[in-house]
Amino acid sequence: MIYFDNSATTKPYKEVLDSFVKVSSDYFGNPSSLHSMGGQAEKLLSQAREQVASLLKVKANEIYFTSGGTESNNIAIKGAAFLNQHKGRHLITSSIEHASVREAMEYLEQEGYEITILPVDKNGIVSALDVEKSIRKDTILISIMQVNNEIGTVQPIEEIGKILKNFPSILFHVDAVQAVGKIPVSLYENRVDLCSISAHKFHGLKGTGALFIRDGLRLTPLFSGGNQERKMRSGTENVAGAVAMAKALRMTMEKSGVGIAEMKIIQNLLRRGLTDMEGIQIHTPERYTAPHILNFSLIGIKSEVFIHALEQKGIFVSTTSACSSKKKSPSKTLLSMGVPENLADSAIRISLSFDNTEEEAKAVLIAIEKIANQLRKVMK
Amino acid sequence: MIYFDNSATTKPYKEVLDSFVKVSSDYFGNPSSLHSMGGQAEKLLSQAREQVASLLKVKANEIYFTSGGTESNNIAIKGAAFLNQHKGRHLITSSIEHASVREAMEYLEQEGYEITILPVDKNGIVSALDVEKSIRKDTILISIMQVNNEIGTVQPIEEIGKILKNFPSILFHVDAVQAVGKIPVSLYENRVDLCSISAHKFHGLKGTGALFIRDGLRLTPLFSGGNQERKMRSGTENVAGAVAMAKALRMTMEKSGVGIAEMKIIQNLLRRGLTDMEGIQIHTPERYTAPHILNFSLIGIKSEVFIHALEQKGIFVSTTSACSSKKKSPSKTLLSMGVPENLADSAIRISLSFDNTEEEAKAVLIAIEKIANQLRKVMK
Repeated sequence: MIYFDNSATTKPYKEVLDSFVKVSSDYFGNPSSLHSMGGQAEKLLSQAREQVASLLKVKANEIYFTSGGTESNNIAIKGAAFLNQHKGRHLITSSIEHASVREAMEYLEQEGYEITILPVDKNGIVSALDVEKSIRKDTILISIMQVNNEIGTVQPIEEIGKILKNFPSILFHVDAVQAVGKIPVSLYENRVDLCSISAHKFHGLKGTGALFIRDGLRLTPLFSGGNQERKMRSGTENVAGAVAMAKALRMTMEKSGVGIAEMKIIQNLLRRGLTDMEGIQIHTPERYTAPHILNFSLIGIKSEVFIHALEQKGIFVSTTSACSSKKKSPSKTLLSMGVPENLADSAIRISLSFDNTEEEAKAVLIAIEKIANQLRKVMK
Repeated sequence: MIYFDNSATTKPYKEVLDSFVKVSSDYFGNPSSLHSMGGQAEKLLSQAREQVASLLKVKANEIYFTSGGTESNNIAIKGAAFLNQHKGRHLITSSIEHASVREAMEYLEQEGYEITILPVDKNGIVSALDVEKSIRKDTILISIMQVNNEIGTVQPIEEIGKILKNFPSILFHVDAVQAVGKIPVSLYENRVDLCSISAHKFHGLKGTGALFIRDGLRLTPLFSGGNQERKMRSGTENVAGAVAMAKALRMTMEKSGVGIAEMKIIQNLLRRGLTDMEGIQIHTPERYTAPHILNFSLIGIKSEVFIHALEQKGIFVSTTSACSSKKKSPSKTLLSMGVPENLADSAIRISLSFDNTEEEAKAVLIAIEKIANQLRKVMK
């Protein structure tokens, strides 16, 4: 089996699951309980928070545990909009955001907020200048992802952060779900106020994520209740999940030096191999790209047909983001880049983890060429 | 160690953790992925949904997986209020609800909704007649918990359901977090539209729960995104968590016949023992009470002092609900029942699981008497 769909989800590290089981069995107390079993659980939660914070180079009180990337994005965007609506009701985002950002913005639009959706260039990159130009007096939040989940492009977070240093009252949210562990995530340096991460994208567990909220900043919570997570996210804390996420993040960061270099080698190997084949168009640009995603179209062959053919050979890739794959509509990211609809309908996303090898990439290239030839023969 | 704080959280069953690990390791695909690894994960999720539905005697398409009881309560109350605000903006609840219901109502009040908070009698029970009397033309939702989390009283869900058969447009939400596995939960019979459950209260995992939403009913989701859980709860599904919850619920239901009978024996044993002691007031009434909770005060001794003394003997109990225990304010439930503040400040909650034994109860009674005597000596 060759698993090349790591941007949809990754396999949890064994050590991560071991930690989860250990905490769930031996430290199962409710962190809010006043007795020592509660205290032990709370201590583990604090340690997990400190570890995540330290790995992201921020303070522990800036990390809030959530149920995942979607929740983090929703708290950041809706929570900021609800709290700051008296200051203004204008938000800025891009046309290539993850569904949880895009749809949160659409929800706010229905609630009377105004949303500016910035285009991307043919390489799938937002212009920092466009961001600056679209800022209004009533702009309260800008949400731009760091790495696009479909084609892997890296957005100009640093430049946008520089611009926003002149606009201290505007909040800057970065969806870093696809960035963590693949490229550097610099929150303070880039003047980021809010940043979302999801553990199952870096070998942690589904149902766990975090939101960075800059010190001193408040949001309107989505969940009311027992005021856990310093009132920002009520609900009994998933202590074992948080500990498991901290471990997954630490392991990912430790592996990232060698791991990213190896990913780049595999990505280049795939790119060269695909470039040499006939009838293939690569959508992921060569520059400003994260090391783990390569998106391309097999001209004339529908994505679904192709991924099922690859699956017959034990190779798992995807059509677009998993969250949107069942809609059967072409990738919004590709269309935003100006890719024609028929080509977008043929798009395949390969996404790597540190566990993938060059041998796997070579095998995938052989399989792609073989299947492409077979399918084209059938279709003629 | 004697763990008598099961209403705060329970120890996950070993089999539940085994299922979680098995699914996380071997079926880690994203259920939204189009390939067979996604399909396998989706199948497991569907099976978990069918199991939970079958155990609650409802249809599979009426079960929505969430991150826990707090999320379920928030989706039910806010989601119903947001969607139905054009029909009316009046909601009814009780004065003894869990913080996640109470605070969700307070949030709505700030948003311009009107909330009627019904009192309880001296036994901590809401009057169904009061519910009926408080219904207005613009009432859109009634939220009453089935079993109170602090004193264990069972609320008249059946009678309220009967009354509401005459008010088909009013939604009925029941927080059954403390009821599942302890008393029968009858959703169709009691005309319940929305019902919240939390897995870690029945030996499942923290971070997992479910919301029953009656077939055909829609709510405004709190999370926007990839439209998982039939658009009601976006975010990559925690498949392993859902499977683990289904297993925990099945095991709990299987054990409940013998388990509940044994709980009642232990509860009675504790009640008799405490009644025989001097200076103890029992708050949990004898009738209309779930089998797993017994709340009482040691007159003149602060709760915190007492639980720490018990802890020295390896006995874990709580002051009030875990979610509210750090606020250091006396139990809202006890105050609502007319318990004086100084007595409420001395309240102790014992909460049982099927794993507890009569021997443990006897040991706890001996410890309580001993500590009460010692503390009273010190204080004199």
